[in-house]
Amino acid sequence: MASSPLNIGLVGFGTVGSGVARILNESAELIAARAGQPVQIRHIVIRDPGRARDHLPAGVTPSDSIDGILADSETSLVVQLIGGTDTAYDYIQKFLAAGKDIVTANKALLYEYGVDLFRQAAADGRTIGFEAAVAGGIPIINVVNQALTGNRINALEAILNGTSNFILTEMLDRQQSYENALAQAQELGYAEADPAMDVDGTDAAQKLAILTWLAFGTEVSLTDCVQRGIDNLQLTDLQVAGELGYKIKLLATARVNEDRLELSVQPTLLRVDRTIAQIDGPDNIIAVYGDFVGKTTYSGAGAGQLPTASAVVADILDYATGRAAATFPSILRSTAGPSLQVQPPEELSRRYYLRLTVEDRPHVLADITDVLGRHEISISLVRQDETPEENDDGLASLVIMTHRTTEGKLRAADMELNQLPAVHGACIRLPVAD
Amino acid sequence: MASSPLNIGLVGFGTVGSGVARILNESAELIAARAGQPVQIRHIVIRDPGRARDHLPAGVTPSDSIDGILADSETSLVVQLIGGTDTAYDYIQKFLAAGKDIVTANKALLYEYGVDLFRQAAADGRTIGFEAAVAGGIPIINVVNQALTGNRINALEAILNGTSNFILTEMLDRQQSYENALAQAQELGYAEADPAMDVDGTDAAQKLAILTWLAFGTEVSLTDCVQRGIDNLQLTDLQVAGELGYKIKLLATARVNEDRLELSVQPTLLRVDRTIAQIDGPDNIIAVYGDFVGKTTYSGAGAGQLPTASAVVADILDYATGRAAATFPSILRSTAGPSLQVQPPEELSRRYYLRLTVEDRPHVLADITDVLGRHEISISLVRQDETPEENDDGLASLVIMTHRTTEGKLRAADMELNQLPAVHGACIRLPVAD
Repeated sequence: MASSPLNIGLVGFGTVGSGVARILNESAELIAARAGQPVQIRHIVIRDPGRARDHLPAGVTPSDSIDGILADSETSLVVQLIGGTDTAYDYIQKFLAAGKDIVTANKALLYEYGVDLFRQAAADGRTIGFEAAVAGGIPIINVVNQALTGNRINALEAILNGTSNFILTEMLDRQQSYENALAQAQELGYAEADPAMDVDGTDAAQKLAILTWLAFGTEVSLTDCVQRGIDNLQLTDLQVAGELGYKIKLLATARVNEDRLELSVQPTLLRVDRTIAQIDGPDNIIAVYGDFVGKTTYSGAGAGQLPTASAVVADILDYATGRAAATFPSILRSTAGPSLQVQPPEELSRRYYLRLTVEDRPHVLADITDVLGRHEISISLVRQDETPEENDDGLASLVIMTHRTTEGKLRAADMELNQLPAVHGACIRLPVAD
Repeated sequence: MASSPLNIGLVGFGTVGSGVARILNESAELIAARAGQPVQIRHIVIRDPGRARDHLPAGVTPSDSIDGILADSETSLVVQLIGGTDTAYDYIQKFLAAGKDIVTANKALLYEYGVDLFRQAAADGRTIGFEAAVAGGIPIINVVNQALTGNRINALEAILNGTSNFILTEMLDRQQSYENALAQAQELGYAEADPAMDVDGTDAAQKLAILTWLAFGTEVSLTDCVQRGIDNLQLTDLQVAGELGYKIKLLATARVNEDRLELSVQPTLLRVDRTIAQIDGPDNIIAVYGDFVGKTTYSGAGAGQLPTASAVVADILDYATGRAAATFPSILRSTAGPSLQVQPPEELSRRYYLRLTVEDRPHVLADITDVLGRHEISISLVRQDETPEENDDGLASLVIMTHRTTEGKLRAADMELNQLPAVHGACIRLPVAD
């Protein structure tokens, strides 16, 4: 192979960065054949260049400054794999200004500044690859931007947060509490020390916002989305759902609904026989509904060092072959049309699962169903099991499934239910996917 | 949009061809935005130009000759959607010689002449798009050639024939015979009048051969593959498998096994809880195992007018954006390495399900297990249910599950079993997927 090498500046050498170095090293020959030229890391930028690290490429001396990359006209591609938004944004702007193309896996950055960065890159004739920013090793960015472009996308339905899915799976499989399953996820490296963004739905909602812009050409913010996390779920909800024929998953949905865009990230009851209900552990899945292709479904590892790194390498190869240069302007053109109006969160329409802890005495059920009735919420199932005498604390668990209603009506009813003296604690409220 | 249009010569205007015309017409604006230029059909070639047809583009007069396309220097892309191999091959060679790029959905053609045509196109600086040739609307060609190129693929496991999968689903759901389910598939348009290539496994094996070349750089022929169809399956096999916790699917597998390539297309028992076992009706699914990404899975409509046409349109957009020109040479480079050796079919190693119809008299089981034992085939389960007295014809159905053994040993044992006087009819022999 006589071609001159593709030189990469790698910014960030954490889990994913060292995984990229490992793949480029171990699969050097294969990648050179696919790229049409050898691919090599020429610069590494890390905060603490003195610390020993695995998979550091031979002959590369890490630096704590990006200046070496900026000054090197023979390094045309920057693979930036740092977290956070401010420094990451600042760096990418500098790299674009210096005429570099970009690959990044930073989902929070793209949620916050993605559309700006994309427009800036396109204006400069540069490209940004970001396959690794959503759903790890599953090539969903490629699917939306390239593979399904013969279609108008009508809906996306997905599990996008592997941490939450792992916790839900562990709770049910080992019949344990949310807290114990979370601790285990942290021990196994499936959850960060601070898991807040994963378990409260923020991570999934940011990923959904990125996909929503690509699929529907509409920029959305987290406030456009009905967002609930798994952090209030109890084992009993998973068990009761199971008895009713459902599994609970943190389901992310974006759907065109009478010309408006409906957005939701919530723990959701799904019939056990649906493929999406059967995705267990840290895996992700995305079902894409196209107007001509119908429903196609994509699943695999949503996180992890090597799956994510392999998505970064796919972006490097897209750049090397020229696919990135062909695709990137097409993304900007196809998202430039009129935006969809976002449906106000309170108009989200679903069937719901409600669980209330209530005093076990006369007229309680009448009071609760009266509240629901006044808010036009119709009931499809009520279930209150007998409390075993030895556990009798005077409280009972009441499960109600409703017919289709709206998030707004339920919020209003919820506030009234919480004021009933017989209702203890918060009402658990979960939508049911059709 | 000021750009000059992309002019297409469309050869063949059957189900898929008219679907492509419909999509290009109904989604003209979206497709122009994605392509960066309007996309229009300028020529249509059909065998009987006089016959009325749906979705014929306005202003295009069909012809029965390709000469108009060959002579038109402003038509750079030919979308060829005819069946058969000889004429299709002849046409594509002429189009390539005339400097046209190609999109085709003809899987039989690509199985037979694909590698030759690809090399010829690459040598001429042209491209061939063929997303629609395998698995209809599922973008598996993109996945193997573009999205997962950061990986070395270790294995593919797939349902690639929608007709067979529909028939198997119908047999089990409606508890009916193969013949009745086939008749129903034909009535609903899921099976051709002559379904031989679908139900005997040839269609799936041809698709697997195409994927095998792309994923492993190895050209294979049908004789390299252990191929069995669903045409000898009986409802009782689906029922017994179900009682044992399995579903039967026409599973296509290509796997690197100790540096050799193992190829199989056979009705296969899969544990009911596996995703691939849950694909019902005419859908397809492909699980791809990459060395870094692990297992990723893709499912959706494997055939049908609009899903297949939407894959053709994706290829048209790959051409229009320049992605095809970037990807096509990369396919040729990455498949140019040393081929894998193909494992001889008789060395295929699996657990097996056997069903024999035997005379219900002493020593029969001893004779059968003696044959198996002499061929070193070890038994993990035997099941012979009592025949209800009113059905007693002196024959019993004997089901045996074996431990792992080889196709070769089983073939040899099978020949001996068929010579036992107590064994009536052929032994049903199905592998079990791990």
